[in-house]
Amino acid sequence: MRLILDCFGGDNCPDSAVDGALLALEQDKNIHIALCGDESAINACLAGKEYDKSRIEVLDAQEVITNEDSPVLAIRRKKNSSMTVGLRALAEGDYDAMVSSGNTGALLVGASIIVKLIDGVQRASLSPLLPTLIDGRSTLLVDGGANVDCKAGMLKEFAVMGSTFMSSVCAVSNPRVALLNNGTEEEKGNALTKEAYQLLKNTDINFVGNIEARELFSGFADVIVSDGFAGNVSIKAAEGMGNSIFALLKRYITEGGARAKLGYLLLKPSLKRLKNIMSGEAVGGGVFLGVKKVVVKAHGASNDVAFKNAIMRAKEMAEAKLTEKIAAAIAEKADKEN
Amino acid sequence: MRLILDCFGGDNCPDSAVDGALLALEQDKNIHIALCGDESAINACLAGKEYDKSRIEVLDAQEVITNEDSPVLAIRRKKNSSMTVGLRALAEGDYDAMVSSGNTGALLVGASIIVKLIDGVQRASLSPLLPTLIDGRSTLLVDGGANVDCKAGMLKEFAVMGSTFMSSVCAVSNPRVALLNNGTEEEKGNALTKEAYQLLKNTDINFVGNIEARELFSGFADVIVSDGFAGNVSIKAAEGMGNSIFALLKRYITEGGARAKLGYLLLKPSLKRLKNIMSGEAVGGGVFLGVKKVVVKAHGASNDVAFKNAIMRAKEMAEAKLTEKIAAAIAEKADKEN
Repeated sequence: MRLILDCFGGDNCPDSAVDGALLALEQDKNIHIALCGDESAINACLAGKEYDKSRIEVLDAQEVITNEDSPVLAIRRKKNSSMTVGLRALAEGDYDAMVSSGNTGALLVGASIIVKLIDGVQRASLSPLLPTLIDGRSTLLVDGGANVDCKAGMLKEFAVMGSTFMSSVCAVSNPRVALLNNGTEEEKGNALTKEAYQLLKNTDINFVGNIEARELFSGFADVIVSDGFAGNVSIKAAEGMGNSIFALLKRYITEGGARAKLGYLLLKPSLKRLKNIMSGEAVGGGVFLGVKKVVVKAHGASNDVAFKNAIMRAKEMAEAKLTEKIAAAIAEKADKEN
Repeated sequence: MRLILDCFGGDNCPDSAVDGALLALEQDKNIHIALCGDESAINACLAGKEYDKSRIEVLDAQEVITNEDSPVLAIRRKKNSSMTVGLRALAEGDYDAMVSSGNTGALLVGASIIVKLIDGVQRASLSPLLPTLIDGRSTLLVDGGANVDCKAGMLKEFAVMGSTFMSSVCAVSNPRVALLNNGTEEEKGNALTKEAYQLLKNTDINFVGNIEARELFSGFADVIVSDGFAGNVSIKAAEGMGNSIFALLKRYITEGGARAKLGYLLLKPSLKRLKNIMSGEAVGGGVFLGVKKVVVKAHGASNDVAFKNAIMRAKEMAEAKLTEKIAAAIAEKADKEN
């Protein structure tokens, strides 16, 4: 597997990105990684570290797309940025997937324009994998924020792509696909979800009906379909609640005196485990479904382990032939509609 | 203050409702409460209890609107339900406010049709008060789920009503009003929020810009304006995260053996305090802004204390002349637009 890693644009770049790449090389002997970005800065990160030099290359790129850049303008004008150089290499070269922790909007625009969309796909979606209460089971949210104004047909497309992702990458057979809504009954919803419900009912996918946002983490569905606005708002609201709970707990422990502090020390492993699971990389991370090759967005604040995990996930998606399978599913959907 | 309490339609009705009313009578000597619902059932709940009989009356109503009822049909057909009898008494009689834990949609429709909307208000909103990280400060979400398809002008109306609520009922001077969005920058948003942003910028209210859903509980804004779909999804997503965290913590404590259990016992007061704050009555509760008299929706699962709190809140709103002040603010807004 030949992967591309955008080493710039994230909070801890390029150090964490480069270290993450080296961790990935160590973990998997079949990976080759092209590091994108300022060559001398990347070489400085690599200097003195032990790694298999035959499995690392550097694609030099002098510019960086920042989070302040306008996505469309950045992709159009910063032709020599680490992100665009990486995307062009993915589109034109012998590479299987790319990971970036940079500007999400720019990565979406760049992936759609440079790597291009799968035939028949209207818009790429950004799809985070959410943790659930069921061990080893995740839920894919499509769309987590890429498309803030959707038509019902797009939600149907999200359902097809999400279902294909869960069956091919996560080995879920006959994935349960639910529609994010403000109630579970069929007649519930706004104009968009009411129309989408009727479309989803008449597909071959395993549509299990509406789901409320309080079930985001229950593992009730394998795929949750939503317009990008509601999807984005829901994961950020959940993140806000998680952060608030941990912040308040910290305050109450301080105020609770010696007894609370001892309790905290004893409970620390459980609380740490909880924080690891629930304050994950859902927000700001995920895969862009609908693009011709695998493009994974790593969380902007990724450390080396997060980069390594994102690289391993991208590799799994490429190995599972995710994009080819989505192309086949979209073609089949189009056949049925004609 | 003369209040009406719908004693049916909630999970623990009529017992908790009646007990809540008695708690309220005890707490505040200036309250008179009309209990709505099956008279013999209510009298059975009252039997043997000590209370000031001159401050309780019963409005007999033989029907109950359930959560399975269609809101519009229920209001139209169940003319003798505890909810409709209560709403008619509020509209026609000498009462100041009403509390119900019944079918939210029916209460919205009933309040709008029977009690009627304030002149110039297009639609009533359901507005929950969210807890925040700042002690003693709450944030009002308008709309939490009543209007799932909104136009930008409705969001402006929500802003005016929410701002009036926070200044008149919560004594917040110059309330900060924010727009729920998928990013903080002015150019962010879907078609609705982009248009609403421009409208909100040109008002007298203290519009502080966009807010992301992760700030729901930060206390950053006094009022958060949203269409009812995104508002509903965001509070339910937050609720889902809260429930998931407490469920996982319980599981990890069980798995953590004696050490974790001891830690839990020591930390129990802090955890309980946390749970009390963050798993409140936000979802499924709130005030209907835009109705001619105060109508408060109590959480469907309200116990006696929750009913008492809802009654006290309704009384505060009526005392603060909330609906009169909203009427004045809406009239002033209309004047400026003409």
